[in-house]
Formats: sequence, C-alpha cells, structure tokens
Amino acid sequence: MKHCIATVSLSGTLPEKLRAISAVGFEGVEIFENDLLYFDGSPADIRKMCEDLNLKIMLFQPFRDFEGGPRSKLAQQINRAERKFELMAELGTDRLLVCSNVQADTSTDDALIADDLHRLAETAAKHGMQVGYEALAWGRHVSSYRHAWDLVQTVNHPNLGIILDSFHTLSINDDLSRLKDIPPEKIVFLQIADAPLMKMDVLEWSRHYRNFPGQGELDVAAFLEPIIANGYNGPLSLEVFNDKFRAAPGVSTTSDAMRSLLFLEEQTASRLKNPAGVQAALFSPPAASAFQDTEFLEFAVNDDSAQRIDNILRQFGFQKTGLHKSKNVTLYQQGSINLILNAEPDSLAHAFFNAHGTSVCAAAYKVADADAMYRRAVEYGSIFYEGKVGPNERHIHAIRSPNGGLQYFVDSDIYSADFHMSKFQGRPHICRIDHTAYGVASEAMDSWTLHFAAIFGFQIEDDLTLPDPYGLMKSRVLRSADGRIRLPLNISENQRTIVSRSMASYKGAGLQHVAFASTDIFATVAALRSNGATLLDIPQNYYDDLQARFGLSDEFTAQLREHHLLYDTDGKGGEFLHAYSPLIEDRFFFEVCERRGGYDQYGAANTPVRLVAQDLYWKKHQESAAMR
Amino acid sequence: MKHCIATVSLSGTLPEKLRAISAVGFEGVEIFENDLLYFDGSPADIRKMCEDLNLKIMLFQPFRDFEGGPRSKLAQQINRAERKFELMAELGTDRLLVCSNVQADTSTDDALIADDLHRLAETAAKHGMQVGYEALAWGRHVSSYRHAWDLVQTVNHPNLGIILDSFHTLSINDDLSRLKDIPPEKIVFLQIADAPLMKMDVLEWSRHYRNFPGQGELDVAAFLEPIIANGYNGPLSLEVFNDKFRAAPGVSTTSDAMRSLLFLEEQTASRLKNPAGVQAALFSPPAASAFQDTEFLEFAVNDDSAQRIDNILRQFGFQKTGLHKSKNVTLYQQGSINLILNAEPDSLAHAFFNAHGTSVCAAAYKVADADAMYRRAVEYGSIFYEGKVGPNERHIHAIRSPNGGLQYFVDSDIYSADFHMSKFQGRPHICRIDHTAYGVASEAMDSWTLHFAAIFGFQIEDDLTLPDPYGLMKSRVLRSADGRIRLPLNISENQRTIVSRSMASYKGAGLQHVAFASTDIFATVAALRSNGATLLDIPQNYYDDLQARFGLSDEFTAQLREHHLLYDTDGKGGEFLHAYSPLIEDRFFFEVCERRGGYDQYGAANTPVRLVAQDLYWKKHQESAAMR
Repeated sequence: MKHCIATVSLSGTLPEKLRAISAVGFEGVEIFENDLLYFDGSPADIRKMCEDLNLKIMLFQPFRDFEGGPRSKLAQQINRAERKFELMAELGTDRLLVCSNVQADTSTDDALIADDLHRLAETAAKHGMQVGYEALAWGRHVSSYRHAWDLVQTVNHPNLGIILDSFHTLSINDDLSRLKDIPPEKIVFLQIADAPLMKMDVLEWSRHYRNFPGQGELDVAAFLEPIIANGYNGPLSLEVFNDKFRAAPGVSTTSDAMRSLLFLEEQTASRLKNPAGVQAALFSPPAASAFQDTEFLEFAVNDDSAQRIDNILRQFGFQKTGLHKSKNVTLYQQGSINLILNAEPDSLAHAFFNAHGTSVCAAAYKVADADAMYRRAVEYGSIFYEGKVGPNERHIHAIRSPNGGLQYFVDSDIYSADFHMSKFQGRPHICRIDHTAYGVASEAMDSWTLHFAAIFGFQIEDDLTLPDPYGLMKSRVLRSADGRIRLPLNISENQRTIVSRSMASYKGAGLQHVAFASTDIFATVAALRSNGATLLDIPQNYYDDLQARFGLSDEFTAQLREHHLLYDTDGKGGEFLHAYSPLIEDRFFFEVCERRGGYDQYGAANTPVRLVAQDLYWKKHQESAAMR
Repeated sequence: MKHCIATVSLSGTLPEKLRAISAVGFEGVEIFENDLLYFDGSPADIRKMCEDLNLKIMLFQPFRDFEGGPRSKLAQQINRAERKFELMAELGTDRLLVCSNVQADTSTDDALIADDLHRLAETAAKHGMQVGYEALAWGRHVSSYRHAWDLVQTVNHPNLGIILDSFHTLSINDDLSRLKDIPPEKIVFLQIADAPLMKMDVLEWSRHYRNFPGQGELDVAAFLEPIIANGYNGPLSLEVFNDKFRAAPGVSTTSDAMRSLLFLEEQTASRLKNPAGVQAALFSPPAASAFQDTEFLEFAVNDDSAQRIDNILRQFGFQKTGLHKSKNVTLYQQGSINLILNAEPDSLAHAFFNAHGTSVCAAAYKVADADAMYRRAVEYGSIFYEGKVGPNERHIHAIRSPNGGLQYFVDSDIYSADFHMSKFQGRPHICRIDHTAYGVASEAMDSWTLHFAAIFGFQIEDDLTLPDPYGLMKSRVLRSADGRIRLPLNISENQRTIVSRSMASYKGAGLQHVAFASTDIFATVAALRSNGATLLDIPQNYYDDLQARFGLSDEFTAQLREHHLLYDTDGKGGEFLHAYSPLIEDRFFFEVCERRGGYDQYGAANTPVRLVAQDLYWKKHQESAAMR
C-alpha cells in the first residue's frame, strides 16, 4: 500500500513537517490548510519542496461547512471553493476533502444537500479536481459514512466520491456492514486513526486524543478489512489530532506513524480470508515469535556502582556465577534469573552509563526463533545493533529499545561461550523475573506501546491511574501472550512524583523496578532480610484496614504484618503477596512477589502504600545523608 | 461559618497536608481514609498532631459500598463499620461519610437499603457516632440527594443524617428545590466543590477536574443559598479531587481554598433576600470597587534593558514625560497609557528583575475607591505591601499579584507628586491599553482566576484552545465589568510552545503581551513603522484565505495585505484589526489593535498566524545572532 500522512498530525512548521514525513519514507502527504496559511511562502514553493523531498501531495483539506448552508451564502461558498481549486492547482494536487457541515443552520433536506454537492462536483470538474465528501462524527445532519455514501450515490457525479475515516466511523460504533458496498473507485481518500476508548464528547476526543493504529483501542483492522477485500489499493493516510504528538519532535512521531500503518496492514492481512492477490500488497513480515521468558537484564554500571549493586544482589540471594572472558562484565544468577553488570569501557553500556547513570541498558528475551524475531523487527523499521564480539564469543541479535538501550532475542544458551562460569550454590530464594517496570515520559507512552504491540506482538492491558503523595501516576502493562513477560510502563504528568523524580535522575526513561517471583514469600522475605536486604516497612494502619476490607483471619493478618507484606486478592481466589526495596541508586527498586491461585494483576491497590513508604524512606535517607 | 477541607484535596503526606491546612486558618479537616492508611503512625498520633495544629477532625471518609450489598456479606460489612468506628474514636471524630453503593450487585429495593442504613445507624449509636449518607452522582441505585433524603427520612434514626455535596448535585443538574426541606440538624456534613463544565463521564470529571468555588462554572452559591437560608451553620468543607492540586505545593493550594470559601460566602450572602441574622455569619468584605482602567504598567529593568525598551517605546510613539524625584524610575506616556521603567537598586523591582529579568513587576488599576479595594483584598487574605516612600511622595495601596509582583489601586492623580513631569508633544498614535496578557504556569491558572474573580470581582470568559506550531496553548480572559480592563491568561502544557519558551526565560509567570488600542489602525501602523518599529510580516496565503472566507472586497483585502494587518469579524458587524511586534527581550511583545462595531473578542483565530510568524522571526533572529 502507499503510505500518506496529514500535516496536522505533526509538530512544527510546514517545512519541518514535510522533512520529517519524507525522512521515514512516506510516499504522500495531506496538506492541512492552516499549515499552508501560516507558511511564509507560496503554494508553489510547497509544491517544489515536496517534489524535492519526493513527496506527492495527495489531498488538500479541509473544506468546511459547505453543503446545506444558507441559500444566501451559496454563491459565496462556490466562489470560496473556486479559490481553493485554484490554490490546489498551484499546489499540484487534485483531491479536496469536504467534511460534513457542523453549523446550526445546516439544512436537513437531503435533496438540497445533494444539489449543493452536485454544484461543487461540477465546479471541481471545471478545474479537473476530485471532491471527497466525509461525514464527521459530529456533523450536524450528516454524521455517518452510510449517510454520506447515500448522498454521493444520489449525486452520482464522476468528480464526487466519499472519504472514509476510521475514527469517525469507529468512534460512534457505526455499523460497518455497508463498507463493502462502496466500490474502491468511489473512495476518494482513506483516512486512518486509532484512539483510546474514552467516555467524553466525541469532538473533544477526536481533537485531542487520536493516536496511531496499535496505540489505541479502536478495531481499525475491522474497519479496513472490507475496504481492502473490495480491492481498494489507494493510499492509507494517517490523520491524527493528538496534543502530545503536536508537542513531540517530528521524526520520532513519523517513525511511529509508519510503523503503525505496517502493523495495521499486518493485522488486516491476518483477517482477510482469501485473495492472495490482495494480501500480497499488504505488509507481511515474519510472524512474531513466541516469547518464553526474560533471558537477562543488563545494567550499565561503573566500578563504584557495580560494588554497591553487587552488595544488594548478594543480599537478595544472587551469586556471581560468570566472569566475561574478554570484558569487564559479570553475571549474577538465581533460579532462572540472569542479571549482568557491564562496566566495560568503550562499550554501548559505557555510553549509556555516561548518559543515564546506573541503569538497565539492555534486556534479552528468550524466544522460539531469534532470527525470525530479529528480521521482523528490522522489517518494522527497528534500528539494529552489532556490538563488538570477541574471538569465539557469540553474536546475539539486538535492536534498539525505545529508550536507546538494547533488546536482544535469544533462542539458545548464550553464557558458556562468553563467560567463565561457576555453579550456583545452595537453593535459590527467588526463581524468575515476574515483571520489569519502566518509567517513561508521558509523551513517549504511545511510542513504547507501539514498539511492543507491533514488533513483539504483546498485549496491552488496561491503563490504571494511581495516587502518588505528590500527584498521579499512570500505569500500562504490555505482556507476552502467556504472561511470562510483563512490562509495566509508568508515566507521570507532573514532576514531583517518585516516577518523575527517578526519571529526572535518569535524564530519560529507565528501569523503574524488577519484580522477582518467589514460591514461598514468607520464607523468602525472612531469608533476604537475614541476608541484610532492606525491604520497606508498611504502616500498621494498612493491616487494620486490610483485615476489615477482606475479612482476613487474625492469624494470616498477623503473619502479613510481621513480614511487612502487602496483600491483594482478585475476589476469585487469586492472591498476590509482595514486598519492596527502597529506591536503589535513587532511581529503581526491587520487588519480591508471590502469585497464588491464578492472580493476574500487580497489586495496584497497594501502590500508594509503597509510594508513601518509599517517599518516607527517601526523605529519611536524604536527611541522614545531609547530617553526615 | 466554620471552614474545613478534606485531606484528599491536597498534595503531600498526611502531616504535610495538616500543616498546610492549619497554616491558613482552617478550623477543621476531613481525614480521607487512604491518607491515614499510608501514614506511618497511629490514629492517636494524628489526633495529637491535629490538636497541636488547632485543627478539629470533623469527618472521617469514605465508607464505601455498604447499603444494599449482597446479604451474605452484611455481617462482614457491619463488622467493617465497627472497626472504622473504633478507629474514629481513636482519631477523636464522631462523623462518618457513607457514600452510596456503586457496585453492580447493589439492590434496588429501597426498603432493604433503608434497613441496612438502620442497622448501620444502630451500630453507630453504640459507639456514639453519627453516620452521614451521601448520594454519589454515579451511585448505582442512589445518585441524587433527593433519593438519599427519602431514605434518611424513612430510616428516621437520630444517628443517621444526610451529607450534601455541591458537585454531586450540580454535576447532574439536579433539581435544587428540595434542599430547603432538609432541616439543618439532619445535615451531618456539607461538602463543597466547583468544576469547569466538561462533556465527559461524571466519575472521571469528579475524580480529576473538580476545583474551588470561583474557579469553575457550577453555580455553587445557588446550591448553598437554600441550605443557609434554612439556618444551617455547621462547617463548609471543601472536597476537591484535582490532578493539578495533587501536584502543587500545599500552602498555595490551601490559601486558595480558604479564599474560595470566603468568595462563596460573599456570593451566597448577596443572594439571600432576608435574614440579617443569617447573613451576619457570612463573610462580608467591602464590595469590589468599579474598575475603570489600567492606570500604569511598571517594568523592572536594568540600565541595559531600560535603554533597549526606551528605544522600542519611542518607536511605538511613547515619550519620556516623567523623571522620578528620588528614584531611578522613568515614566513614558501616550494617550491615557502610562508605562514606568524602574531601574532603582534596593527596590522590589530590583529583586523582581534579579529573579525574572526584564518584566512587568507591577500593574496599577484605576478604581472608584482605592481604599475600599485595598481593604477588600486584605480581608480576602492578600498579602499587602508597603514600599519605600520618599518625602512628599504619595503612598499607594498595593497587594501582591499571583506572580509575586505588585498590584496597585489608584483613585487620583499619582504622578505629579513623585515625578518631574513634562508634557506629551504632538498627537498620540495609540490611546489606551486594550488588554494585558500574562503567561501563566498551567497548574497556576486556577489560582490566578480566583485572585481576579474573588478579589477584583472580574468576569471569567470561556477558555480557548489554540495551536502553536509546537503544541497547544490555552487562553482564558478575566475582565472588568465594562471590559475596560481585560487580562488574557495563557498557559501551555508543553515546553516547546512560544508561551512556554518565554515563561522559561522568566523562570515563572510574566507579561506575555500588551495590546495598545488605536482608533485608526492603518495610520497607526504606518506611523509606527516609519518611526522604526518592527511589526510582524504576515504570510500572503493568509490574505487569500481571508478574502475567500469572509468575502472581503479586493480593495480592503489589499489594504490589510499592504499593512500586514490581521483581521477578524464576529459576524454581527464587529471587526478587529491588529498587528504584533516580534518578541521583545525574548519574552513579551506588543500588539496594536482597533475594535470596530462592538467587537468584543481578541482575534483568537489569528493567534496561530502570529505564533508561526513570531517563531520564524525568532529563529531568523537567533540564526543571525549566531552568525554575528
């Protein structure tokens, strides 16, 4: 398919937008009229700029509030259209988007509206232009593609067709069954947007919260399927109004834009029953491989922080079992968990450390077919990475993660070739990584989501909003199909929350916490504490309320209280018991947890308790540091 | 009236909240249960803390999802209530808020619900407690105060009353006529919140967007009037869930909280027809004086920037007509406009300059009765300011403005005593200040609004959202009754817009622009340009569209084009013509405008053109500065 995007979707001046659109390989662009109005040059200048950037101007938009308006203004409206057709000729485009009238004085007489559209089509014909009529979800009289299509059929003019838009159709839960009736040649343009589901006025929703397919919750592939099945092969064009995209630098947004269209094509292809011919035109990368586990997490450290982290890892029951054969890199293991500390100079980890301080610079995932996953990621436009490999050391496929670190795909033993290994002694207290949470900038959440949804094929769980003592944080979990890999992403709109404070230390997105799974949490936290590990104290009031709320037995409540464990239940027999460390290096922390009876969440109800406890610990720590 | 506030309204840990509440003179506090749960101490510790802060714990809240729940859980629910009554005894409070059940399995049988409430009241009686039943606007079965009141009457128990909440009633546009039927002694508590009108799910609206009376658009005084008229003299308690308040430092929020209650009392008193006895209990400051004009704007400068501003003011037609008798302060005049440059060392202006650079550090307003306005402001908790006054110089009443500058109230000539004056020569090009716009931090908008609405008695115009090339900005205008003083406040949620960039230069809120009114804009802009003033060039595309949009004559369009004037019309014969300077000192700018035919807005449709033009000018300026 050809890929196009409306200039209104992006941040910047018109020339900045066009450069960003061209940079990631879009074939076409919709020129949003206001971008042109504010541009300090002629339409012909824009035409030339687009030619130089190898971009085709596929549409000019929008022409508003035309059809069914007051009769007294009709001549002026036609005159206005003539001016726009002249401007379009100068721009070198032949398609105009006419959106349905939203004015209070719009006629509800379909015959009159059809007549207006006919006049417009005749005017367009004189100029050699095509008019596409689009129903806005909040159009005064015409608000559904079905109504717009009826009118286009009534007019039956070669210079008038319909413009379909996934948002306007899906946002009102419209009946999709008539999409298949629209012949592809009558579709003047096809606009695509996704959005999170929100209970609010559809106009406000549309103007501020649209996003790219795969970032929202609308079933855009269900909308697209009948159109593609019918043989449509014109452009797929993104038209997204989003406050955060308006504020974000252009090229990162256009990279996501392109990826989202590829993802939409892949999803649509998988829905199409038959024609190989149709499917062949859609993007079809290698399928996402099954994700089996977190293989390792790699921390960028320096010699000082390596020493401190080493100490904490030992308290948490880890043992140093591997020394890298050629680099200043060590491996810590426990159960199936592998943690790597990388203090190698002249490495990506070192650069990462210099930019962000001690942090997770790489994560590796165990997949069924690492090579296929790597090729899939590259086809999705991921930047790939080839690190230095010593003699006889393994090469591992890696791509850049959304925060500039690395993500490896692994499908076989990777340690014995690179490390001098020793055996873990005794019994592990914790067995695997339950989840790995990241602190992410609010405006980057959609980008991270798309990375994991499109490339990794991960599922997106519902967003949660949680109170920090100094503001709200929001959490969204991306997870592998069977839940073995879970990645909570945490954002905060304000600067005083714990999430924001640690992100400020990182100067960017970074590890927020790693949760280690135990199968006997009471024994585990007791053992870790006796190893010297620090776990947060939980206020007594919490337990009084917990018992009253869930009707827990005195004995069980006393046990939780004694071990300072947090508790949650899903009301269906599932239970979650967990404990947290204070902030480590002022930025991330460890969790120890046990899932019982199929509990599938993260104890979100306890997050505020943890946040206050960490805040208190942090302040005491700072005070005592200040006193020293 | 007694003033109270719920801890959930504020940012911070529970002790931080209590200190902030006490600091501004609240008598009481509602303890929000979660704040207690996360507190690292006992309920008795909180009781002691409140006693030390001279705060009474007036309510414990909330007790959720009790009435009409599954029969199998009733015993556990009563047990849960017993625990909470015990906790309340430890806290030293006797009132519990029970909010209506929101669970899907809630019974719709009012007799059964009344029976549950009766049991709860009996339990409360055993502990000497009062239960207040509150209808949540999104309650599953009980969602209106009228329904809740019916149930309370049915139960008819001395330990059960109703809790009224302005948000839950006004948000659903509920019938207020039965408020007068509720005897004051059955009102266990009275909660107050305002909110901007929003078309969204009421639960989301309530949880994130409530604000203090005077900051929103609900008619809280209409809600309160019948309750007060009926003789209620218990506490007025603010319960506000607001994302920005959660993130803002406590004392500034509590100052606004207190001011909002006083404002509500004043508004309510003015609605009450009769009883002097009732009104006497309500806050009644001197009435707001009539605001007649902007008397002067004072810029904090240093000698360098004074030189540059002097040059620009001369280009704009101002003349230096006053030299201060004792200070390094100069007066520029034109028409009725007075601009002061203050470079005096050891002054508030100097401190302001050191903190914020060149900026407006004071504004003076001509009012009918300066002394009354000053006393009113002080009664509303404004911080007042007494500057250094030289011998025989005038003392002028001043209060602190929301950005830490000064606001003077003036009702007589103030220049001749302090300045050596000379006469303005020739004819002025511009005659008065049309409006003065400020850039304000997004989280401070509500605080600025309350300052001008409550103390000044200004009207609040509807918010506008406008696109900057790098993100959205939002604008809200506060204006005096007759529109002679208009103060647009501009905010931006993201850091890349022009508003945010100039606020970053200010390190805080500051002047964004001053608009000077002309009665012959074509002559004025020609004269200013020939004086050497720089006004922004407007793209040609703008005029092509303008003509098509409004059907303007070729001649008039050519005239606008020639003078690079922006144009707007209100469609009722009102017209607005205006032009802008580039950014001055990288932070503020001047506008020249003419209103015709009763036009009452600000040409908002042209804001994006101005923003792009300023951005282009700014970049060119930076480039050429870099090349020098």
